[in-house]
Amino acid sequence: MAAAPKYPAVLSFEDARHVVEEHALNLRHLGMERVGVLDSSGRVLAEALAADRDFPPFRRAARDGYAVRAADLEQIPAILQVVGEIRAGSSAAEPIDIGPGEAAAIMTGAPAPPGADAVVMVEHATLQGARLQILRGIEAGANIVPLGAEARRGEQLLPSGIRMDHAAIAVAASVGKDHLLVYAKPRVAVLATGDELVGITASPGPNQIRNSNSYSLAAQIHAVGGEPILLPAAPDEPSRLRELIAEGLKADLLLLAGGVSMGKYDLVEQVLTAFSAEFFFTGAHIQPGHPIVFGRCGAGAPAREKPGAAKYFFGLPGNPVSTMVTFELFARVVVEALAGMAPRKLIFLHAKVKTEIKTRTGLRRFLPGVLSGEFEHAEVELVRWQGSGDIAAAARANCYVVVPPDRERIAAGEWVAVLTR
Amino acid sequence: MAAAPKYPAVLSFEDARHVVEEHALNLRHLGMERVGVLDSSGRVLAEALAADRDFPPFRRAARDGYAVRAADLEQIPAILQVVGEIRAGSSAAEPIDIGPGEAAAIMTGAPAPPGADAVVMVEHATLQGARLQILRGIEAGANIVPLGAEARRGEQLLPSGIRMDHAAIAVAASVGKDHLLVYAKPRVAVLATGDELVGITASPGPNQIRNSNSYSLAAQIHAVGGEPILLPAAPDEPSRLRELIAEGLKADLLLLAGGVSMGKYDLVEQVLTAFSAEFFFTGAHIQPGHPIVFGRCGAGAPAREKPGAAKYFFGLPGNPVSTMVTFELFARVVVEALAGMAPRKLIFLHAKVKTEIKTRTGLRRFLPGVLSGEFEHAEVELVRWQGSGDIAAAARANCYVVVPPDRERIAAGEWVAVLTR
Repeated sequence: MAAAPKYPAVLSFEDARHVVEEHALNLRHLGMERVGVLDSSGRVLAEALAADRDFPPFRRAARDGYAVRAADLEQIPAILQVVGEIRAGSSAAEPIDIGPGEAAAIMTGAPAPPGADAVVMVEHATLQGARLQILRGIEAGANIVPLGAEARRGEQLLPSGIRMDHAAIAVAASVGKDHLLVYAKPRVAVLATGDELVGITASPGPNQIRNSNSYSLAAQIHAVGGEPILLPAAPDEPSRLRELIAEGLKADLLLLAGGVSMGKYDLVEQVLTAFSAEFFFTGAHIQPGHPIVFGRCGAGAPAREKPGAAKYFFGLPGNPVSTMVTFELFARVVVEALAGMAPRKLIFLHAKVKTEIKTRTGLRRFLPGVLSGEFEHAEVELVRWQGSGDIAAAARANCYVVVPPDRERIAAGEWVAVLTR
Repeated sequence: MAAAPKYPAVLSFEDARHVVEEHALNLRHLGMERVGVLDSSGRVLAEALAADRDFPPFRRAARDGYAVRAADLEQIPAILQVVGEIRAGSSAAEPIDIGPGEAAAIMTGAPAPPGADAVVMVEHATLQGARLQILRGIEAGANIVPLGAEARRGEQLLPSGIRMDHAAIAVAASVGKDHLLVYAKPRVAVLATGDELVGITASPGPNQIRNSNSYSLAAQIHAVGGEPILLPAAPDEPSRLRELIAEGLKADLLLLAGGVSMGKYDLVEQVLTAFSAEFFFTGAHIQPGHPIVFGRCGAGAPAREKPGAAKYFFGLPGNPVSTMVTFELFARVVVEALAGMAPRKLIFLHAKVKTEIKTRTGLRRFLPGVLSGEFEHAEVELVRWQGSGDIAAAARANCYVVVPPDRERIAAGEWVAVLTR
């Protein structure tokens, strides 16, 4: 809230996001390690994976049916002689050779035999004994994946810098990698601030609340590939705050939660300034999360207390829903970049509005919503909430409805963007 | 493919999904355990969480600004006297009492002082010394969240049976739970079948491929809260297949991958029948994944080999992309039900088609796609692929485009459903 002149600006959501993405582009990973392929799920690949052979390694049947010579089906109905069966993995010493007028039963995934140039689907043929009747013609090449059509030996299948998911794990397994190089997880320090905070097992006094933000942030950091480091909550008092920020700046990224309200921010700002802080923005036109702060410590002139190289920090607003949303919108891409990923654009998919949405213009809003419906009939409606302090409403929601700043009403049945969790 | 009369049917996608959901509804969890709150991420909550106090526990300021008596602003401009400052967490022995004509500076999250019934946003007031000028009126209650408005003490905040994510973890932390009861992870056996399969570190012969399906399934099972148990790949040979299926049926769910092609399925069927298998469906009108099989062993008449209670199994088609997609569409909801979750409807969000999609009618298709664009301008296009054996294409994709069975063309700019990963 403290809009001192040296602070650049309260930016639009899009501009704020782009500022973060630009900085994320220049971040480097923090080392590498080797893990078993199954332990790589969620980690970021630190080596390119190439095909160790042609894929497929043989002309692969794409359907159950009959391997034929397409030329034999120019006149239909055609009658062919079935001369054998080809099963996937069969290692017959003498492969069946399909001559004119011949066919072989073949299974999906099996190698097409020499001589055959198409596979007739089992549904399109009638077998009586070894006599196969086919009622429709076929093009040469139909239902056969050519050797090397998916990838040639040596061709790159996956670049480094992607997050490993089940499909990427299948690629690694298919090229024989049981261990993979992945980037080290960035250590992300979490520092909740505020005199009102007590530990989660404490009995809060009447004006106190439990520190839930450190826990939700830890879960979010972990989910996107970081290693959370939870610092004790900081009181609104300079010397202890300074100690804890110094501790946090030893990590690869520092997330402050809270301390961006009027009055409190002066204190956080003063302490950060002692660490040569630059501020890239001190707010974004969003709700929740308006007072989001993004900056970097220790990159400028030498400061009295400079714990190491330049470190980025976010000041995430301390209202719990604001903390959750601003992590997803801004901090996540920095955690991912430190984890070795190329910064990704934020993409919101859409659903139809179930119940009219009314709000005010001026801010881009991310409002807790619930998706319902089934299959392609997805609908979304807002949950009743009491604002960005309402953790229970956020937990009842399963997405955030993204309302553009120029809309004060979205009618039932309109498409609307949603940020999923 | 073997449509023997005792097998019920090849179902539409929707019917097949509903059959699975009905069975999932009757599944029970497999026990409980206690975990630390941060270790609960991704687990399924086995206890309801209730508010241990009113939320908020005091009348909470929702904005930075000034706590006032709304009646004082009936005549504007109004001039008020600022009598103090209220910070979140302050434990002043004597709370400030706001009398007529008075105001107090207040921070977001701080308790509204006695006497005040609204908070004027800092942007709407001008302070000179202790003299506050306000140019617009306000309604009583504005920018104050009433005590207990989010939840009353004792009220349920989260039911059991939900998957813990960062927002649910924030709820747990806010009510003082540092440990939680969660349901046990179901053990899910994975049995890839086929003579063509070799281990991932082996050098495959010309007609062999590495078993990647066990690895992608393990990652998918793990991601949705199951404990994968990878069995050795089974050859197309009855006695070893019988041994391995018996082993798999000791787990809580058995996923067979492969063995649903023409010819091979006869063998798998014969072995499963010896375990009193019932088959609920043996195919769905989808691509990839058409020959998907869903059934249950050991619930019917006593069988020669019955390793325990009734166990569900899926026969997932062995083409790698089919295996991945059919897990998401069908097997996942059973893993989740065994993990204690209430079965969820499948919901596909939407994006705009970037490049015209052409296909054939008759099957619901789940085609590997790539989302691009930014913010609400999400677009999707198909990746070039060589069919459901093309693992590399699936890994280049980041979603599947869902094409209804009656569409053979979807124009650029149309909305289309996507299944995200």
